[in-house]
Amino acid sequence: MTTPQRFTVPGTDPHFASDNIAGAHPEIMAALADANTDAAAYGGDPITEDFHQMIDTVFGTGAYGFPVFNGTGANIVALQAVSHPHSSVICADTAHVYTSESSAPVRAGISLKPQPHRNGKLDPADVEAVLASDLGNPQSTQPTAVSISQVTEMGTVYTVAEMTALCNAVHEAGLAIHMDGARLAQAAAALGLDLHGATTALGVDILSLGATKNGALGADAVVVLSNRVQQAALAPIIKYTTQLSSKTSFLSAQLNAMFGTSLWHRNATTANTAAQQLAHGLAAIQDVEVPTPDATTVLAAMPETLVARLHEHYVAHLWGHDATGRPIVRLVCSWATTPQKVDELLQVLSP
Amino acid sequence: MTTPQRFTVPGTDPHFASDNIAGAHPEIMAALADANTDAAAYGGDPITEDFHQMIDTVFGTGAYGFPVFNGTGANIVALQAVSHPHSSVICADTAHVYTSESSAPVRAGISLKPQPHRNGKLDPADVEAVLASDLGNPQSTQPTAVSISQVTEMGTVYTVAEMTALCNAVHEAGLAIHMDGARLAQAAAALGLDLHGATTALGVDILSLGATKNGALGADAVVVLSNRVQQAALAPIIKYTTQLSSKTSFLSAQLNAMFGTSLWHRNATTANTAAQQLAHGLAAIQDVEVPTPDATTVLAAMPETLVARLHEHYVAHLWGHDATGRPIVRLVCSWATTPQKVDELLQVLSP
Amino acid sequence: MTTPQRFTVPGTDPHFASDNIAGAHPEIMAALADANTDAAAYGGDPITEDFHQMIDTVFGTGAYGFPVFNGTGANIVALQAVSHPHSSVICADTAHVYTSESSAPVRAGISLKPQPHRNGKLDPADVEAVLASDLGNPQSTQPTAVSISQVTEMGTVYTVAEMTALCNAVHEAGLAIHMDGARLAQAAAALGLDLHGATTALGVDILSLGATKNGALGADAVVVLSNRVQQAALAPIIKYTTQLSSKTSFLSAQLNAMFGTSLWHRNATTANTAAQQLAHGLAAIQDVEVPTPDATTVLAAMPETLVARLHEHYVAHLWGHDATGRPIVRLVCSWATTPQKVDELLQVLSP
Amino acid sequence: MTTPQRFTVPGTDPHFASDNIAGAHPEIMAALADANTDAAAYGGDPITEDFHQMIDTVFGTGAYGFPVFNGTGANIVALQAVSHPHSSVICADTAHVYTSESSAPVRAGISLKPQPHRNGKLDPADVEAVLASDLGNPQSTQPTAVSISQVTEMGTVYTVAEMTALCNAVHEAGLAIHMDGARLAQAAAALGLDLHGATTALGVDILSLGATKNGALGADAVVVLSNRVQQAALAPIIKYTTQLSSKTSFLSAQLNAMFGTSLWHRNATTANTAAQQLAHGLAAIQDVEVPTPDATTVLAAMPETLVARLHEHYVAHLWGHDATGRPIVRLVCSWATTPQKVDELLQVLSP
Repeated sequence: MTTPQRFTVPGTDPHFASDNIAGAHPEIMAALADANTDAAAYGGDPITEDFHQMIDTVFGTGAYGFPVFNGTGANIVALQAVSHPHSSVICADTAHVYTSESSAPVRAGISLKPQPHRNGKLDPADVEAVLASDLGNPQSTQPTAVSISQVTEMGTVYTVAEMTALCNAVHEAGLAIHMDGARLAQAAAALGLDLHGATTALGVDILSLGATKNGALGADAVVVLSNRVQQAALAPIIKYTTQLSSKTSFLSAQLNAMFGTSLWHRNATTANTAAQQLAHGLAAIQDVEVPTPDATTVLAAMPETLVARLHEHYVAHLWGHDATGRPIVRLVCSWATTPQKVDELLQVLSP
Repeated sequence: MTTPQRFTVPGTDPHFASDNIAGAHPEIMAALADANTDAAAYGGDPITEDFHQMIDTVFGTGAYGFPVFNGTGANIVALQAVSHPHSSVICADTAHVYTSESSAPVRAGISLKPQPHRNGKLDPADVEAVLASDLGNPQSTQPTAVSISQVTEMGTVYTVAEMTALCNAVHEAGLAIHMDGARLAQAAAALGLDLHGATTALGVDILSLGATKNGALGADAVVVLSNRVQQAALAPIIKYTTQLSSKTSFLSAQLNAMFGTSLWHRNATTANTAAQQLAHGLAAIQDVEVPTPDATTVLAAMPETLVARLHEHYVAHLWGHDATGRPIVRLVCSWATTPQKVDELLQVLSP
Repeated sequence: MTTPQRFTVPGTDPHFASDNIAGAHPEIMAALADANTDAAAYGGDPITEDFHQMIDTVFGTGAYGFPVFNGTGANIVALQAVSHPHSSVICADTAHVYTSESSAPVRAGISLKPQPHRNGKLDPADVEAVLASDLGNPQSTQPTAVSISQVTEMGTVYTVAEMTALCNAVHEAGLAIHMDGARLAQAAAALGLDLHGATTALGVDILSLGATKNGALGADAVVVLSNRVQQAALAPIIKYTTQLSSKTSFLSAQLNAMFGTSLWHRNATTANTAAQQLAHGLAAIQDVEVPTPDATTVLAAMPETLVARLHEHYVAHLWGHDATGRPIVRLVCSWATTPQKVDELLQVLSP
Repeated sequence: MTTPQRFTVPGTDPHFASDNIAGAHPEIMAALADANTDAAAYGGDPITEDFHQMIDTVFGTGAYGFPVFNGTGANIVALQAVSHPHSSVICADTAHVYTSESSAPVRAGISLKPQPHRNGKLDPADVEAVLASDLGNPQSTQPTAVSISQVTEMGTVYTVAEMTALCNAVHEAGLAIHMDGARLAQAAAALGLDLHGATTALGVDILSLGATKNGALGADAVVVLSNRVQQAALAPIIKYTTQLSSKTSFLSAQLNAMFGTSLWHRNATTANTAAQQLAHGLAAIQDVEVPTPDATTVLAAMPETLVARLHEHYVAHLWGHDATGRPIVRLVCSWATTPQKVDELLQVLSP
């Protein structure tokens, strides 16, 4: 008999491996307890009505969203909403949807056009290159959208100027902008913007809105922010992508507790601050080099000996090597990363 | 601007519309609270290890399962596990996967071969008819599995004899049996069997194991019961079907609380008993005709005037008409259906 | 090493097995020779310009078509042109596209809703039944088209009255009619109609136009007949379905020779006449029962002994059994079936 | 009414636009005439038996192939034969299958991993980079094959040493090599190898064998060369990809005439020689720079004024710009390019 694969990851202490190792925030658990009552299924319940109102309020007049189970689901739903049977979506070659969602995009009929990234980011020239070769070419897929991640997979955050330049270029070409906002809260907090300011106001057309990585038990959403995307397309796509919950009220309750209050900002700030503390502490260790993190991801170059010491305790993903050949380790903080946890890790690396 | 569709259903009181209108059982909520801690992602956590052990114990030595978000997800994952690119799955033309999961099967590459049902059931002759026309025919898809629902969409329950006959025929033809067990608990309770006795022991090869409709907050699973299905196929399918939760521990916790204890049986018995009470009460009303329910679904033929009275209060789905032309109304009980709720409904119909 | 499958069929003499066993008509070969010159690729050539003009002339002002390689290609392209990601196509459960094109429809994202047929045909009630259960139901696929075969897979031909009733019902529901016209020429000839009269005039919206079975070397087309289908959708669908020929001129040349002249009618008449002769001859043999064929397919019930004699010489497909249990044999005539070939077969069965 | 797209390309004289503008060679037309007889359908005919024998003889003991209609079909069939539902295929970012087959790969479930090319080629390091990030990673697709084009889309030809190094690296990783051989004949002729020597002997596992661009009326094939690919997988894939011809004998006849004789080599040599003549002539014109072509594609950098003169007569695709900013024009020769045609073009550019 073949041994089944159980999605295990190496290592013992899951902390700093990713931000999805944290549990659910107490306010989320309280919201779920409050929501626990008989209710109409499939989103016809009062809590989901509140969710629709909240999305409208937070993201701007007319924004429309619907809850889904997870980030992969949000991305696959959102990209289908901006695709047609021979369209393509331009993304960075580091994009989660290109590197880390297995064959989900292809099986949903999404043709990705990955482009070489700079620190996890795209710029207008990347988009123009694809347009020049593909637009109007009957042999090619036809670009309909650009997908970016904010925070990016490299841990960087697009600045307001970068976002504006990219969104303008995309819109001028008649395309839509999708944002994979699995870590939107952390990016908005880092930029000092509210959620509307970090998305709608900059030109984002459709958003994968992540709560799971920022303290939810398990809930994300897809939000249509502009009329470049058909709102009515969302419901059937969610259904046939297997992402429609019969008990939608439990997803809505989490999203309301996260984005209808300041919880998203408090949790994101905790995570960003922990990353600053961690980077600062690591930089003080001999032979460790750490750029200042934009948000929650710390990329630290360090000698093999220190990596080995880390691995005695932690699941610390290797992220490549620096110019001198030293390994780069990726450490991620979350809303649940306490100063004590940071100190513990620094202790492990101290002489 | 087009008006977005918000998955609403007509009516006011959601009770009896379906069993997914019930919330989560307190033991489920307690299990979630217990599980709320930092943990390795994607199922590498201790609670999911317990889940694997529980599945093994409950369904028989060597059974292997993994949690998913919902019933559509469970079915689409399970049917992919018994499909190849030119295979087909035989099902009743009432099967939820054929009638009620939109284009999810087709978009996952699953070719369904719906056959005329008898009370929601298939029998060996249905399978043989498809095999006779398709097996070895290079123009046709090749049958690899038969999918049945237990409880069926008509509310009926396959007897042990029916299950045995069907599974034998399917296995003799070299095919696998998939059971859509969104309501397996209710069927097993009705049959007086434990979960192993209602599935593995009768010849089921792969199972969509439902907890959501029986008191979970939101959790189902796919379980491979025999070596007719590759266990190792499950993990990647779950990933690319968008059904892998980064916080799998919260799904596992619910499933452990449901199937690792007697909760599944207690809740199912409550629901089945409520349906008996409801059917008995309805039968006592003049001009109402009700067959004894096998499990939780009551199909009641009644005059238009009574239907109108019901609809003043309830979302009561019409299910067709009887031989005399009277409408048949479908009423579904759940683990949360109290005797008081049943009495309220009967009161509405009383003269 | 596994033995590869070589698409073989049992038997020796291929005649009467199907109409695709015939070669290409001399006028087709002559047209190919005439077309053999350097020419712009992908349909930008003068012969394809003539094809566009011919389609316009034959099927009515504004009709637009494009050549494809084969009948499966034509059907899969045409059904995609009337589908969206959660649509369905209603067809008879005998439809070639449901029974005989393997997983091609599913893999192209087409959800079929097969309905029980009467002599290979659908009627308005079949369509209404699906609409009643599915239209507007967010759990279901949404019907957008009805696909019929003319000649049907049972060899029957829809009458003008049947076509009119069905097309009216389909259009009133806002759906489109697709005709699998792999044998349209034979049907039109049998009905005494020209091609426009057998399609556009009766309400067909999109057509799989078959030439291969009526004397082409290998060429079919998809033709959009009404504005219920977007003409502009055709080109990209043909490309991504792998059905775009770089040397389209050679396909266009065949279709021009077939449908821009009387060749389609001459060949169809030859085939239909041969079937009448065959049916008449078989009916004269003791214990053989043969309904008068509508077009080219003869379904003959005969004793096992005669079937055995047939099989000594011919690939004669079994088509089921009649009420008395006798096997029914399916024999198909083509444009290349000479009176001598018919006599040879009758000779084999004569005492 | 929307205007339908008719696959037109700009320009007047199609010569040098591509090699698919040439018609069919007289020996191909003669083979089709010889094949024009009643015959068993779907490849059960004697000419296709000859084709199987020919493939076995030409490509080495045990090779198995089947005819398809066109190059897109051959590639999509071949890549499905080396794919599974969560696999990936590594290719150059210039690969025809990535740039020029619209959404056909994605819609067939093929995940491509395009890598930056060098002159249209991949080398072992490209493969190793993808393996390092993806192999065994449950978040990623799993590489199962590497697809290369020979001749490449840049007109270059992999040397024997390059092929050997790449195939060895691919095989050591447990992957298969697919060759898009739309122009294999021209590559083999350029390398001075026979077809076996240019494919099987170098380690190619599955081949898209092109005849259309080298003088066929319209015929290509998929050929399994090693036991790294299941031969039995081919038949059903061809069927569900819509690439099975009922009159396969007409495809086989062309392929037999092309590869069972020296025709492939004669035509390829004519085309390669014409390209040499064209390059030589262009190089003699002031301000025109032309690398020596490996096979049939000439990439010529020239001033805008000369490009304008070319475009008065020819469909000459722009291919980018050289380091000095001059446009690069792509001119392709074929088996039908006569010395006169080359002279005519040179005349246009002469002062």
